[in-house]
Amino acid sequence: MLIVQKYGGTSVANVERIKAVAGRVVKATQEGNQVVVVVSAMAGETDKLINLAHKISQNPSDREMDLLLSSGERVTSALTAIAIESLGHKAMAFTGRQMGIITDTVHTKARIEKITGERAKKVLDEGYVVVVAGFQGVTEHKDEVTTLGRGGSDLSAVAIAQALNADLCEIYTDVDGVYTTDPNIVPEARKLDKISYEEMLELASLGAKVLQTRSVEFAMNYGVPVVVRSSFNNNPGTLVTKEDKDMEKVAVSGVAYDKNQAKITVTGVPDKPGIAAKLFKGIADANMIVDMIVQNVSSDGKAADISFTVPKTESKKALKMTEAIVRELGAKGVTLRDDIAKISIVGVGMRTHSGVAAKMFDTLAGHGINIVMISTSEIKVSCVIDAKYTELAVRVLHDAFELEKA
Amino acid sequence: MLIVQKYGGTSVANVERIKAVAGRVVKATQEGNQVVVVVSAMAGETDKLINLAHKISQNPSDREMDLLLSSGERVTSALTAIAIESLGHKAMAFTGRQMGIITDTVHTKARIEKITGERAKKVLDEGYVVVVAGFQGVTEHKDEVTTLGRGGSDLSAVAIAQALNADLCEIYTDVDGVYTTDPNIVPEARKLDKISYEEMLELASLGAKVLQTRSVEFAMNYGVPVVVRSSFNNNPGTLVTKEDKDMEKVAVSGVAYDKNQAKITVTGVPDKPGIAAKLFKGIADANMIVDMIVQNVSSDGKAADISFTVPKTESKKALKMTEAIVRELGAKGVTLRDDIAKISIVGVGMRTHSGVAAKMFDTLAGHGINIVMISTSEIKVSCVIDAKYTELAVRVLHDAFELEKA
Repeated sequence: MLIVQKYGGTSVANVERIKAVAGRVVKATQEGNQVVVVVSAMAGETDKLINLAHKISQNPSDREMDLLLSSGERVTSALTAIAIESLGHKAMAFTGRQMGIITDTVHTKARIEKITGERAKKVLDEGYVVVVAGFQGVTEHKDEVTTLGRGGSDLSAVAIAQALNADLCEIYTDVDGVYTTDPNIVPEARKLDKISYEEMLELASLGAKVLQTRSVEFAMNYGVPVVVRSSFNNNPGTLVTKEDKDMEKVAVSGVAYDKNQAKITVTGVPDKPGIAAKLFKGIADANMIVDMIVQNVSSDGKAADISFTVPKTESKKALKMTEAIVRELGAKGVTLRDDIAKISIVGVGMRTHSGVAAKMFDTLAGHGINIVMISTSEIKVSCVIDAKYTELAVRVLHDAFELEKA
Repeated sequence: MLIVQKYGGTSVANVERIKAVAGRVVKATQEGNQVVVVVSAMAGETDKLINLAHKISQNPSDREMDLLLSSGERVTSALTAIAIESLGHKAMAFTGRQMGIITDTVHTKARIEKITGERAKKVLDEGYVVVVAGFQGVTEHKDEVTTLGRGGSDLSAVAIAQALNADLCEIYTDVDGVYTTDPNIVPEARKLDKISYEEMLELASLGAKVLQTRSVEFAMNYGVPVVVRSSFNNNPGTLVTKEDKDMEKVAVSGVAYDKNQAKITVTGVPDKPGIAAKLFKGIADANMIVDMIVQNVSSDGKAADISFTVPKTESKKALKMTEAIVRELGAKGVTLRDDIAKISIVGVGMRTHSGVAAKMFDTLAGHGINIVMISTSEIKVSCVIDAKYTELAVRVLHDAFELEKA
């Protein structure tokens, strides 16, 4: 088998852990596999570099940030290759460029366009383990270093697995796999043996930080089988794969929460066509990602309130921008609320089970939790609530849908 | 003017110092200059990375070490560009690859073959400051990252100055310039206004750590004017340039010392042709640099003693290797002595002043300092002495040649 193994920051946080990773890699080769390893920066390194840059400038250029941040993964890739070699197995560290990871030119959140990987294929056949610096690529003519955005090493791994036609992509992290919810909040939370790409995608985008969203999208689009497992034990992990009959039997697979959103409400928006388009175009142009959008027409039908959520880190910027657009539109005002949380239930079984959303609303209401916004998709129901009820909401929903039972 | 400014590790050791460097760079542009900045890794970073690697492996591969160590300068180049931009001046960080620094393939001590620098020229003309990550390059086909050896950022700077046809190469460090000797040992040591390439070369290779040896060789070969000055004040520094009449007036320009050598003596070497060649070929093949070599034929003319010095860090390795060769040659034995120091006097004026060496030996003898080995060049006399007399020897020689006087 050709296996791509990705190790996150906590799995390579220090010399001892890097040695442990090397041991795991060599074991996989001894079992007859070819192995490509993708590594993140050592835990804390990326934040350290970001802090240095922000101490120097409020607004560092994206191009230089990419050059800066890409160094963390280069360090880990070299150290990991050295660790594998010290165990007597041939290994070679590759930068994003050496791996042939070609991206577009959008610094700090570049998209992978293709992975050539010729040199990797060659040295794999020569018996080397290839250790790739995650999170990074180069632009078409290899002039510029780019990074793939936070958590981008997951995407590196999945894309490399696809490019090399790997049999499996293992994502090693500090948890055993994907749980029905956060075990820190619900001790009875159960590890799932497998989960569909679609569900994983919803969970990832909802703030369950096991896999980066784009990596799941990529895996889904190309059918790359992904296993999420812990680098600290030998438990089997969770397989992320195509939806199957088993998965449809249960209505809800998991409960997720996200405390990193803020809600902006524009009040008294004149009820004319094209207003919402104008508002969200301005925000999209600033590369800000709006999650939920809810619009209510006022009782007299002449004006509307529009609420939407943005990442909390960008809420100030979004507020400023919205205020500017609002003046132009002739709306009444803008408010920002950041003491909110989004609670979601996810499951492909929802498609065939009725009453799931109603049960969610009822459960929350039964515990005195007010719902501020609602948004639904085919396999998900999300409610924005007061942040202080987050843990309570997760617990009562996990209980109501009996997720502790297999 | 086009100026290349190189800032060493202590000059970019933290955020405040990087900001100070940015201020100095912007000032130079405001005076009407185009500026290329070459930066080292932040003080301590390279050692930190080396330690990590050595904790993982006794013998990390050179290729991976280059990938590992090159990251330090990349970080500083990005941060420095960000700092310059925060002062309102356009700046762009370049890796060794982006600067077009092409080297041979000898990892960890690569030699620069050429610098294309086209992109740098272009963006300089567009008004950017170019900030280059020092110490690194890429191989011909840009497949591999290489580093230039310890202190290699000096070489990066001088070679870039030559490639871009710069008017001046300023090496910023934590000392004011080149002194007649170490001011920590002789408080009366005097800063030299200028010094010849040849003298600087001898001083650099003798362990006066102001400029890396190969960078001086390069500057000399191409006539690149180099100024050594402090990044912590505005003192004028020392100009390293072609020998001129003024320089020849004084016999001795400076006194240097080097405590980082060890002496290996092979005793009872059969007096046959080709023996020394065999010995030193073995050592050269291991990429070890032998400094002084002295051979004495024994009184009966049938055997000789050969002594040579190697860097202290490689003395164990050299001893081992020598022992192997010695068995083959049929010599009597090998001894290692590492409690030695090399004291040298340097000056282009020696060529025209006689009795300089005699005065050195006499001065040392007059203070009871025994001379273990002697080696001379046109502009230098070096003596190996007992390490414990190092400071004394430096002081008495500085005094004897009246170096405190201009």
